[in-house]
Amino acid sequence: MTYTLVLLRHGESEWNAKNLFTGWVDVPLSEKGIGEAKRGGDLLREAGVAPDVLHTSLLRRAIMTANLALDTADLHWIPVKRSWRLNERHYGDLQGKDKKQVRDQYGEEQFMLWRRSYDVPPPEIELGSEFSQDADVRYAGEPIPRSEALKQVLDRALPYWEGEIVPDLKAGKTVLVAAHGNSLRAIIKHLDGVDDETIAGLNVPTGIPLVYELDEETLQPTNPGGTYLDPEAAKDAIAAVANQGK
Amino acid sequence: MTYTLVLLRHGESEWNAKNLFTGWVDVPLSEKGIGEAKRGGDLLREAGVAPDVLHTSLLRRAIMTANLALDTADLHWIPVKRSWRLNERHYGDLQGKDKKQVRDQYGEEQFMLWRRSYDVPPPEIELGSEFSQDADVRYAGEPIPRSEALKQVLDRALPYWEGEIVPDLKAGKTVLVAAHGNSLRAIIKHLDGVDDETIAGLNVPTGIPLVYELDEETLQPTNPGGTYLDPEAAKDAIAAVANQGK
Repeated sequence: MTYTLVLLRHGESEWNAKNLFTGWVDVPLSEKGIGEAKRGGDLLREAGVAPDVLHTSLLRRAIMTANLALDTADLHWIPVKRSWRLNERHYGDLQGKDKKQVRDQYGEEQFMLWRRSYDVPPPEIELGSEFSQDADVRYAGEPIPRSEALKQVLDRALPYWEGEIVPDLKAGKTVLVAAHGNSLRAIIKHLDGVDDETIAGLNVPTGIPLVYELDEETLQPTNPGGTYLDPEAAKDAIAAVANQGK
Repeated sequence: MTYTLVLLRHGESEWNAKNLFTGWVDVPLSEKGIGEAKRGGDLLREAGVAPDVLHTSLLRRAIMTANLALDTADLHWIPVKRSWRLNERHYGDLQGKDKKQVRDQYGEEQFMLWRRSYDVPPPEIELGSEFSQDADVRYAGEPIPRSEALKQVLDRALPYWEGEIVPDLKAGKTVLVAAHGNSLRAIIKHLDGVDDETIAGLNVPTGIPLVYELDEETLQPTNPGGTYLDPEAAKDAIAAVANQGK
């Protein structure tokens, strides 16, 4: 027997569309992103994949994507759990900045290091600044970061994976995780045992459910890399994500 | 000290607009209902009322109302609990039927008895019929009804009130309950000690948050009847609800 895990990256946000570093800034979905979310729900329904429980980040682009996809799939009523530990990578001082401007200012090498290195975080965000979350009540009392590389995302996502998601899987529930490019890459790195270099080149397309079947004993994927519910669209989208900021 | 409870009836649904008995049939919000939900969120934000936790029914008109209101109030990230025990009254065999046709067929007296009597439920719905929920996976294993009067709604809502909502209130959380005309009337009857006759004339307007302050010892309202966040609009809406089916 296997457990079923579904990963869903949020649809395009207003800042994706504007090519700004977003991180923990809580921007809404764009019109395109709303359409992607509903399409994700269609894909779930057509594939007969029916999550029993939803886990989301605390950011509206993931929450709205899940709400729209589940409503489309007639699964709006399933239980929900949320955690900042599923949030997007905190982009530190880059949050709110234009990706192209950052690349022009710091050069391609530094830009790619901040975007893709496994463990080099951008400069920390200044507390109290416009795009900082230190005064945001939803994070009160939590050990939230001021900047993260993927490594730090993995470090703070894993306790939630082990403590909240794995128990749901072991209870036999089909689990939907609606989250972000980097928090999902962190989970994928953990599940598939992707090494620190290879994960840099791994992109998760928006709005296309990625289904893992996990061995009930080891929680290792029996389908390594998972299965996208629309493989052709996923291939095209992965290529598009890789070209962001170019 | 008092605890804060916020009751929110869903905005207009597509079947409210068509004047059909809805009950447990899972219809979406109308365009007007979507606007009412967002307005509910505006009212929460303007009043500085910030729920810490949401309780909803399993029906999309309540779920979508809460999602839209909380997103508007920048509170989309709060924890959520759901239960069929907060569902609308089950309208039995009347579900899916036109209110005016039912009144013409059965007469005003029977019509008002089914709509407003405290303990006379409509005829039971036929299992397996078009508007029955007996095969709906979301209710699997639950002791769901085949028809209800308000009394039966109160009987099945109270265990959820005591078991899930009261503990959140006693933990000091501001609780938002997004539900339906009759499940909210059941809670109001319980809170305000409304007698069986008076409750028949009590209508809850859609989309306008109703705020109760509950004494921390007795859980009795210190503001009996609660306080609507837009009292003028509530007054107008209550009059309009009372005229439904006329």
